[in-house]
Amino acid sequence: MRVCYDELYQVMNDRLVKYGVPEDIAAMCAHNLAETSFSGVYSHGLNRFFRIIAMIKMGRIKPDNRPVPVSSPGALEVWDGRLGMGNTNAVSCMDRAIDIAKKNGAGVVALRNTNHWQRGGAFGIQAALAGCAAVCWTTTMPNMPVWGGADRRIGNNPLVFCVPYGDSYVLFDGAMAQFSYGAIESAQLAGKQLPVAGGYDEAGNLTTDPGVISKTWRVLPIGFWKGSGFSVLMDMMASVLSGGQTVGDIGKQGNEPEAEYGGNQMFIAMKADAVGGTEKD
Amino acid sequence: MRVCYDELYQVMNDRLVKYGVPEDIAAMCAHNLAETSFSGVYSHGLNRFFRIIAMIKMGRIKPDNRPVPVSSPGALEVWDGRLGMGNTNAVSCMDRAIDIAKKNGAGVVALRNTNHWQRGGAFGIQAALAGCAAVCWTTTMPNMPVWGGADRRIGNNPLVFCVPYGDSYVLFDGAMAQFSYGAIESAQLAGKQLPVAGGYDEAGNLTTDPGVISKTWRVLPIGFWKGSGFSVLMDMMASVLSGGQTVGDIGKQGNEPEAEYGGNQMFIAMKADAVGGTEKD
Repeated sequence: MRVCYDELYQVMNDRLVKYGVPEDIAAMCAHNLAETSFSGVYSHGLNRFFRIIAMIKMGRIKPDNRPVPVSSPGALEVWDGRLGMGNTNAVSCMDRAIDIAKKNGAGVVALRNTNHWQRGGAFGIQAALAGCAAVCWTTTMPNMPVWGGADRRIGNNPLVFCVPYGDSYVLFDGAMAQFSYGAIESAQLAGKQLPVAGGYDEAGNLTTDPGVISKTWRVLPIGFWKGSGFSVLMDMMASVLSGGQTVGDIGKQGNEPEAEYGGNQMFIAMKADAVGGTEKD
Repeated sequence: MRVCYDELYQVMNDRLVKYGVPEDIAAMCAHNLAETSFSGVYSHGLNRFFRIIAMIKMGRIKPDNRPVPVSSPGALEVWDGRLGMGNTNAVSCMDRAIDIAKKNGAGVVALRNTNHWQRGGAFGIQAALAGCAAVCWTTTMPNMPVWGGADRRIGNNPLVFCVPYGDSYVLFDGAMAQFSYGAIESAQLAGKQLPVAGGYDEAGNLTTDPGVISKTWRVLPIGFWKGSGFSVLMDMMASVLSGGQTVGDIGKQGNEPEAEYGGNQMFIAMKADAVGGTEKD
């Protein structure tokens, strides 16, 4: 079945309004999700919609809450997401980072107390289409063991790099786990093995079997100790700069995969046309 | 044999001066390398010294050349390293990023035309000890195949995250290859297998045999397609922002591992005490 963009947008928008989401936030949220599905990233568009509705019903997403500035020493601003809608909080904060960059060359926003941003790449694209190179990342609830560990204590913390390219962009958007939970579930449903090892079995051996990993949930960090180390530092840096909760704090609230508790996010925008003058050499 | 720090520093400093390095740059360079060996990162301290001397003799490092500003739209500055000494260029540019951050909350320096920065973590530590969280990375000559490729076309591009921790710091410093060339050589000399697959044999199969990888030089990106994608974007972003050569351009100059042709570097510093006021909520 093909669904046209406008219809997809409208249905999601109307449903969000019905669940008490203010009209402007509903429109932004539906636009972000429809755009993500339209781009072919099905796992983070419409497919997440029902989880967002569930989280509004649970009171985990507080859709009336808009992000507010906490402190702003110039080109670095700290914002509090107040557990509002995750993707619209992220759009607002990347917009703010872009505005600062347009005026100052570079702009950074550290956002705390937010919810799942859905497709991280969307915010890199947003910056690139506005003429900025962008680095951004999010922390998550504890959903990955540290390298060598058995329990999920760190986040898979997606990291995004995006640069403008003509009227378009070049993007890389990847989590610190070798496979997303969605990819593991898809392989399991399709009865396929993963193309490379994606986690550990109960004996601590690497496996490509999605069924085994979906029992142990011991997913593999990219590069073993490397993805594990990057994840820890991404969490520490976002927490230190935003004043938000670390992955350990978030884990104490519960760790149900369906809840997707929010964390902190970093948005770094840099004007891509900064190279202007001739060398002063 | 134990060598005390002061002696190691003095010997390197004197040798650099003998090879025509200006006294202040020789002192900075020797300090950086001695500090790195002192920290236990032997691969990137004294062990690199003879390569630096060789590159000065070859005319690849131009030790009289100091980095100069190219353009400075506020919190983002572009500098040209003029193929000067790599580690001292990096110290200077991170210092500049820190200065901007102290005044503006965040500071970014994009440096082009530079040489190997030796231990990337050193510049993260430099920022953290000055009260800033830092993200920095370097591009390299083509020393890694893209995922699925056979020839070395992209860089292993080390990425550094560092945050202040009391009077100290927490650091992660890792290249986009699973193992550095130094680690592969060390394993080969010791007659050991690598702990996990580190590259491909001539038939394109993954292997833990360092002898095989040191023949094919088909080193493995962390997370397969993920480290490969991050490397491409790190290169594009540093090149776009600094106006410097991409990894493809650098490869056209030659690709001898001993030469370590320079690339571009990004230094992002963010004031770690930005979270100050109470919420305006």
